[in-house]
Amino acid sequence: MKKSLVVVAHGSRRTESNEELISIAKNLAALTASGFSEVRYGFLELAEPSIPDAIINCIQSGAESVTILPYFLSAGRHVTVDIPNEVLKVQKQYPNCPLIITPYLGAENGLLSVIAKIALSET
Amino acid sequence: MKKSLVVVAHGSRRTESNEELISIAKNLAALTASGFSEVRYGFLELAEPSIPDAIINCIQSGAESVTILPYFLSAGRHVTVDIPNEVLKVQKQYPNCPLIITPYLGAENGLLSVIAKIALSET
Repeated sequence: MKKSLVVVAHGSRRTESNEELISIAKNLAALTASGFSEVRYGFLELAEPSIPDAIINCIQSGAESVTILPYFLSAGRHVTVDIPNEVLKVQKQYPNCPLIITPYLGAENGLLSVIAKIALSET
Repeated sequence: MKKSLVVVAHGSRRTESNEELISIAKNLAALTASGFSEVRYGFLELAEPSIPDAIINCIQSGAESVTILPYFLSAGRHVTVDIPNEVLKVQKQYPNCPLIITPYLGAENGLLSVIAKIALSET
């Protein structure tokens, strides 16, 4: 079964910010190869591709399930309402393809050790 | 030498978002105890304490150096301009206390493995 992963961020007018997500998607491919055939990226606003377009690209490339990971630090409206709504639009078009939204990045306990590492590297 | 760590975020009108940072600061204390005597938090906007107030609280509690860690995913204006400006305000008031700004969270390569873990936990 071909599974795809889509990392989604807010999107920015700053090209560099959007490129950070593109670079993450590229680097994630090797790290998630055990679970996903491909990794794509999508933006909620201000940059392309949109979240629906990114998911549809996966499906049109043969994905039989798509996992959407919100690259956000807090559970604001974008995470709780806007991203689910964008995903729902695609789910209605493709009712037979499971679309799974993971917890957002900020909810992951493992972040703490990354933060600790940054802090301690300066001591 | 007493060193303090201040984790700084944007700040939100949503209490829950601000509480996420407060919880991180609390949980970081044990993980960074080898390098820091205390961990505090500060907000750029919309919530209290401000970044200068958080740093000054550290100094008034005896910190001889304060490390400031930007809890941000991308290097936008807040990370590149606003946070350094807030820190500089305090540095002028306390020229003898080293104030060190670490790289922002999104710049840390270790984030990739956290993202991979979230994605793979859904497969």
